[in-house]
Amino acid sequence: MDQINFSDQYFMKQAFIEAEKAFQKEEVPVGAIVVCEGQIISRAHNLTETLNDVTAHAEMLAITSASEFLGGKYLNQCTLYVTLEPCTMCAGALNWAQLKRLVFGANDEKRGYERCSPVLTHPKTEITKGIMEEECKEIIQRFFRKKR
Amino acid sequence: MDQINFSDQYFMKQAFIEAEKAFQKEEVPVGAIVVCEGQIISRAHNLTETLNDVTAHAEMLAITSASEFLGGKYLNQCTLYVTLEPCTMCAGALNWAQLKRLVFGANDEKRGYERCSPVLTHPKTEITKGIMEEECKEIIQRFFRKKR
Repeated sequence: MDQINFSDQYFMKQAFIEAEKAFQKEEVPVGAIVVCEGQIISRAHNLTETLNDVTAHAEMLAITSASEFLGGKYLNQCTLYVTLEPCTMCAGALNWAQLKRLVFGANDEKRGYERCSPVLTHPKTEITKGIMEEECKEIIQRFFRKKR
Repeated sequence: MDQINFSDQYFMKQAFIEAEKAFQKEEVPVGAIVVCEGQIISRAHNLTETLNDVTAHAEMLAITSASEFLGGKYLNQCTLYVTLEPCTMCAGALNWAQLKRLVFGANDEKRGYERCSPVLTHPKTEITKGIMEEECKEIIQRFFRKKR
């Protein structure tokens, strides 16, 4: 087993808090944060229903907000934490942003980018997965059970 | 040779006018429009530099604007015309939007979604390519020649 990385746990918890906010709004509960030099520079959760906009995934909103904070469009000094594996759209956006590191919680077997092509992210992006995997998966399952 | 579709030519010309606006702003010249029931409901051009945001591709802005116009997030009655083959991010977004029809001008051999995976778009989306191909390719080449 890998050594537990406490900052990854801490930051994923922050992304998870965002997912919980989405849940409260009856949005598919996915949350994301962007961290630069140990500091959280953006927080976002899925808002596709609220905004009537398929592009309003947590990751997309977090990227836009982080870029605004930094005053530049490249996130090559940043880590994005997201509770669920990004979809192909979000992986493509993270590729353009040249993200330094991607950390995600649960796999998304239906819509995750890895199912389609693991090379969608930028070749320099380091990837870590499975942080808070159970909680991140459970909140999604709970959401869809409630919807049915 | 396929029969010339005059509406496709007309609408691609409108997308091309958007690409020219991007060129004037020193943005990579890509333009897009969304057509619903024969009517243009959104127009957009690439604004990644102006907005400092990698997600601000012409297609993404056109999708968001079309959804706002329609008051719904699905574009399953719409055609998107774009001067350049969408990237993986934009193809992923068009998939989520369940776009009815995609028409693009020039292929993008470096960053186009087809190079990565032709199945990134929605299975129901009809795809037409090569409308105004030469002009759409030339404006991109002219842009990068000027940049060098």
